[in-house]
Amino acid sequence: MTDTAQTPAIDRVAIVGAGVIGAGWAARFLANGLDVTVTDPDPDAEARLNAAVDTAWATLAGRGLAPGASRERLHFTTDLEAAVAGAGLIQENAPEREALKRELLARIDAAAEPNALIASSTSGLKPSTLQADCVHPQRVLVAHPFNPVYLLPLVELVGGERTDPAAVERATAVYRAAGMRPLVVRREIEGHVADRLMEALWREALHLVNDGVATTEEVDAAVVYGAGLRWSLMGTFLTFHLAGGDAGMRHMLHQFGPALKLPWTRLEAPELTDSLIERVVEGCEHQAAGRSVAELASRRDEFLSRLIDLVSEYWPEAEGIEGRI
Amino acid sequence: MTDTAQTPAIDRVAIVGAGVIGAGWAARFLANGLDVTVTDPDPDAEARLNAAVDTAWATLAGRGLAPGASRERLHFTTDLEAAVAGAGLIQENAPEREALKRELLARIDAAAEPNALIASSTSGLKPSTLQADCVHPQRVLVAHPFNPVYLLPLVELVGGERTDPAAVERATAVYRAAGMRPLVVRREIEGHVADRLMEALWREALHLVNDGVATTEEVDAAVVYGAGLRWSLMGTFLTFHLAGGDAGMRHMLHQFGPALKLPWTRLEAPELTDSLIERVVEGCEHQAAGRSVAELASRRDEFLSRLIDLVSEYWPEAEGIEGRI
Repeated sequence: MTDTAQTPAIDRVAIVGAGVIGAGWAARFLANGLDVTVTDPDPDAEARLNAAVDTAWATLAGRGLAPGASRERLHFTTDLEAAVAGAGLIQENAPEREALKRELLARIDAAAEPNALIASSTSGLKPSTLQADCVHPQRVLVAHPFNPVYLLPLVELVGGERTDPAAVERATAVYRAAGMRPLVVRREIEGHVADRLMEALWREALHLVNDGVATTEEVDAAVVYGAGLRWSLMGTFLTFHLAGGDAGMRHMLHQFGPALKLPWTRLEAPELTDSLIERVVEGCEHQAAGRSVAELASRRDEFLSRLIDLVSEYWPEAEGIEGRI
Repeated sequence: MTDTAQTPAIDRVAIVGAGVIGAGWAARFLANGLDVTVTDPDPDAEARLNAAVDTAWATLAGRGLAPGASRERLHFTTDLEAAVAGAGLIQENAPEREALKRELLARIDAAAEPNALIASSTSGLKPSTLQADCVHPQRVLVAHPFNPVYLLPLVELVGGERTDPAAVERATAVYRAAGMRPLVVRREIEGHVADRLMEALWREALHLVNDGVATTEEVDAAVVYGAGLRWSLMGTFLTFHLAGGDAGMRHMLHQFGPALKLPWTRLEAPELTDSLIERVVEGCEHQAAGRSVAELASRRDEFLSRLIDLVSEYWPEAEGIEGRI
């Protein structure tokens, strides 16, 4: 069996697929001082890749590059096997089609060094499915990033049935070294965690537009000027914990729990059992880490006040475009 | 019929219900230089109200108060009718129970000046239901804010079957004068627009916790470190427009449209008909206002780079609390 735990730090990454996500990975790894080889079957992809990396580089250089980081350490080839050879990490970003990804991962697996990590950027497919045709599936996992990949810190790491837990652990260190925040997902599930949440919101948004309740612009305004401002600091649970007043989430579930039965979305909620209530309340209390709702709220307000000043420089009307609402 | 269009600017507001939302409204209107009378049947509510307004005032004073704005222009009474008399706007914030709100709005309607606006902060109930027992329903509407009400700009305005459109128009001016961004909802629907989106995400989050896929902390991390950072600038549609590369939303729907049939959430999506595709693509193109995806992306990156620096001062680890992931 391949030894996935005892391997040196990775200095060369292969990126398979040069679309928006692949180019984003390339820019992130380059800025972190690695050698990056990108491969794509379309020879025209190289020009698009270079343009995308140039754009990202402007921001990344402004934020500070790692020692030795260079735009010149980017290489492109249409030859998949050549790109993969010698890479410590291979990041796959092919279109979201199961058969295509399975075949590609099997080819990558066959061509890669025995101890290389192989990660798929899939937003929705399960690693157990993707690794099914690989000869060395123990180093194959999902590492799902968020656009723009070179700025957003989240990466969801998901192991499949045949993934070695040590490979997930090693991947955690690799992505953390690249400036990311790896979230190891406890159980594989379609859409992992973040995209399930986004997809629920997205599907409800499509229903609203389809039913003529709101335009895309109005839906976006409803996100941006309300909850969206809060979500860069606190997620949905901590947000509701603060909306509950001094008694926090426990009061909130008492007050708004019954609304879970109301038709406020087309998505049916789970039964709010005592055990779910306890799990949610205890989770929020753990996140609060001993801070009272008042302390959290005052910190949130200071943040929001600064954030509102910052975004007002970027919202459409700051560009002279008529405000969305 | 009451003349709802030709009335002077509002200088006195009555707030019915002194919870988190009621106190938030009080602070916002006070900071905008209005007289505010809050009423609540619980005499202990006054102390909590004062504490909440004190907390909000620290932030509001730092942001700059309107001429004449004073914390001293806040009054409290347990007498609903006395609070309502002479107010140009009455904002109702009772618990989210239909019968209670209907009865309260009928009492407010009977006690209010004939040309006063009456708005409910309900997150989910329809205005046609809420105004059913009022004698002058033409000036009754929903004005749904977001916590913290004194900072977040969004307010959803929804008229019912018997609401005079002129009352909605007048309310738009009143809330705009109080520093808000009113979103007039085209059609009444349970949960309006923003809460349907938030509720879809919230229900999916509860399923993930209930099924043991993630803890509340992990769900929140998945929001904050990924999509949440983007949602303070761009909503779900414009975000996906940018993820589609140069071809924007049209490419995105081509690439991820089929995923709407996959089990990435428990929420079923609408059929992606040609007409829905056109509506979504045209909406995004209107929002883009002639700017290319590359231009939008470069502006987003500049914003995100500054936002990441700002939030890193406030994320838990900045307080010495172990990072959530």
